[in-house]
Amino acid sequence: MTLRIVEIFGPTIQGEGVLIGEPTVFVRAGGCDYRCSWCDSLHAVDSRYRHDWLPMTPEAVMAEVERLSGGLPLTVSISGGNPAIQDFGPLIALGRTKGYRFACETQGSIAQPWFADLDTLVLSPKPPSSGENPDWDRFAQCLEAAGPARAVMKIVVFDDADYAWARDAHARHPELPLYLQPGNPEVDPDQPVDLDVATARLRWLIETVTGDRWYTPRVLPQLHVLVWGNQRGV
Amino acid sequence: MTLRIVEIFGPTIQGEGVLIGEPTVFVRAGGCDYRCSWCDSLHAVDSRYRHDWLPMTPEAVMAEVERLSGGLPLTVSISGGNPAIQDFGPLIALGRTKGYRFACETQGSIAQPWFADLDTLVLSPKPPSSGENPDWDRFAQCLEAAGPARAVMKIVVFDDADYAWARDAHARHPELPLYLQPGNPEVDPDQPVDLDVATARLRWLIETVTGDRWYTPRVLPQLHVLVWGNQRGV
Repeated sequence: MTLRIVEIFGPTIQGEGVLIGEPTVFVRAGGCDYRCSWCDSLHAVDSRYRHDWLPMTPEAVMAEVERLSGGLPLTVSISGGNPAIQDFGPLIALGRTKGYRFACETQGSIAQPWFADLDTLVLSPKPPSSGENPDWDRFAQCLEAAGPARAVMKIVVFDDADYAWARDAHARHPELPLYLQPGNPEVDPDQPVDLDVATARLRWLIETVTGDRWYTPRVLPQLHVLVWGNQRGV
Repeated sequence: MTLRIVEIFGPTIQGEGVLIGEPTVFVRAGGCDYRCSWCDSLHAVDSRYRHDWLPMTPEAVMAEVERLSGGLPLTVSISGGNPAIQDFGPLIALGRTKGYRFACETQGSIAQPWFADLDTLVLSPKPPSSGENPDWDRFAQCLEAAGPARAVMKIVVFDDADYAWARDAHARHPELPLYLQPGNPEVDPDQPVDLDVATARLRWLIETVTGDRWYTPRVLPQLHVLVWGNQRGV
């Protein structure tokens, strides 16, 4: 059994959401059932890049994670693409025997039994600006599959319509800790990110949330974009 | 009984540490037993500003918090100065009856029984660059006073000496979740913050921590400085 892997990199920090600031190695899975209009990881999504994806056994993935981490356990962040179209169960089982912890981010369109073996499951349903239309029944199945894993919801907000949608999403799942982050319209890895623009978008989202007296979500940027721009492998 | 209050502002988000991104109202206490060389809140520390500090009853503080929050409970962040030189017990007791949660940041030089009534106690011992010299016995007393409150450690890191010191501090209290943030040498509220400099300092700290394969601390910026510079009241 092999996994389709786009890249394994780190250690760096998790730049987003509930684990923001935490040292981690990323394992990026290839392939996705969504085509978000503003996808910042098309190289892990679009099948025209599939020849760059490496078939790797769980043992080979774990060996690379251990090489990068110097053999010292840390949190492994499984991202994509949508990692839930593959079976990461054997990798997680192997890593856990060595003391590694696992977090995974997925949009919540496909439930997997291995979600229950994660430490943290980040469910990131996509708002209207993505052009996708989440299926809330499937989302609930993902949540159920998570079982004992900590589950949280993260929503990217580009505009007022996304913001209104995020409020509805929270109303559907008020039990999930909620993380909002402003969308990043500049996703070209070859173009610099304008920090004034990026921080202005964060300011807008903070002011929108607090102006509405909505005190539930945490509002966070993509730290890695502020620090490294859209550069890959960091 | 009155408290010496410098300012009450918000709702905004908590810009630092364990509660980063969380909507909050800040209550800034006047007066401090430390004089950190790089203090970013001298208007709450230096006694030459004391005539700007307002004596307020806990009831008056809470009334202002409720006015700002629209009467909807949220996390109140007690900062300073060093709030531990005053008695915030009555304010916390009053706020809790109304559903508000309380977090407090202090350097860990003075223990207070009301620490146990907090939701979150952020102990922020000051590294060598501050010019202060933490007393670890007193720090341990603060930790003991916290009792059931969640206690975490936050350390500001300006340079390699601070970084080495942070590693020692963690070795003294490995049980405390640890948050590191790069120091901000630009603290003049009338001067703009250079975002490239601020993000470069964060990048340095991330690379130092991960380069050392030290996977324990979370490394986070001061979000409010990235978003609003050194402006006060946000």
